[in-house]
Amino acid sequence: MPARKTRSAPPLELRDACIVAAQQVIAERGIEHLSLREVARKLGVSHQAPYKHYPSRDHLLAEVMRRCFQGFAAHLDARPRHEDPELDLESLGLQYLAYARDHPLEYRLMFSTTWPESAAHPEIARDATHAYDVLRGVLQRMHGDAPEMRDTIELDALYIWSTVHGLAGVMNGQCLDRLELRAKVVRQAVRHAMDRMSAGLAGDPR
Amino acid sequence: MPARKTRSAPPLELRDACIVAAQQVIAERGIEHLSLREVARKLGVSHQAPYKHYPSRDHLLAEVMRRCFQGFAAHLDARPRHEDPELDLESLGLQYLAYARDHPLEYRLMFSTTWPESAAHPEIARDATHAYDVLRGVLQRMHGDAPEMRDTIELDALYIWSTVHGLAGVMNGQCLDRLELRAKVVRQAVRHAMDRMSAGLAGDPR
Repeated sequence: MPARKTRSAPPLELRDACIVAAQQVIAERGIEHLSLREVARKLGVSHQAPYKHYPSRDHLLAEVMRRCFQGFAAHLDARPRHEDPELDLESLGLQYLAYARDHPLEYRLMFSTTWPESAAHPEIARDATHAYDVLRGVLQRMHGDAPEMRDTIELDALYIWSTVHGLAGVMNGQCLDRLELRAKVVRQAVRHAMDRMSAGLAGDPR
Repeated sequence: MPARKTRSAPPLELRDACIVAAQQVIAERGIEHLSLREVARKLGVSHQAPYKHYPSRDHLLAEVMRRCFQGFAAHLDARPRHEDPELDLESLGLQYLAYARDHPLEYRLMFSTTWPESAAHPEIARDATHAYDVLRGVLQRMHGDAPEMRDTIELDALYIWSTVHGLAGVMNGQCLDRLELRAKVVRQAVRHAMDRMSAGLAGDPR
């Protein structure tokens, strides 16, 4: 039995090892250098080996991206929860920002990468939608599920996503440092923006 | 006189041609492929020629980025102006979004690029600050210039920048299409976010 286990393990490991190697290639050399050949070279396996699991470079990239969205959704789901949807939305925003700060490569892959052809890889969109549904869920609790609130929920989801996405970009980008803002202002920036965001959500849209 | 003009023109032209060629290299092959050698190859000049104007690859990149910020600030300055600072802020936001949509390469260079070492290239930060000052100016007109409003102006500048930067990223990114939102929602997204942003700015921060 142990012998059989050992025999069946390597293919599974290679499948996962390709993902790790692909992320390394992207981190070190940029996404345009991602290829199954480069991944095989990095793993020290034959050029043909990765093809057993990924028919093409795009299949590998699709699986890398899918796992990013899956991990991202799990991270959002693991936020400190609150009964009050306004507090829960704030918790979700902070959890989002923590992910962007701590996983810059994964974050860039999800939101700044050219996606593989979508019809061929519907699984990425499925996992991306699941992550987005976390936000929709909180807004639905906030606005209620009356049919006339459907558009507002969708529009607010885009508004909240934009704000925290932009905040992540500004706070983690290089431009901020060069503007030489006062340290106190930079320290308060996220808190202030989250408060403005909540106030915006409470206001009546024109 | 015309002969003299002709003799003095080429160096100036090469200086500018290097900028255009550098942007092409970045657009076609990615920023990690930018080198003075690659720029010379693209222009069909000797490998040494670009060094007359740019002592290093970082000097060339710094000049490319500086010109992006300069053009960006000029674009923001050219917005339809309004006496009412709230309307002017909205005009500024829409002008910002139009730039991000129409100049994706320049936008990426300014906000998603690893900057050359800043102490050696203070001119980029100077032009970036000028662009940021356009936003500060509108907020100063909105909040007044009493000393106790100084921090609020700075914090709101970061809030507004984050929101429009995020909106640009979401609306121009590839993720949006894959979420299969209703067309009506996508059409209204910018308008809705700008209204929420204004409402947030009018609210009392906690």
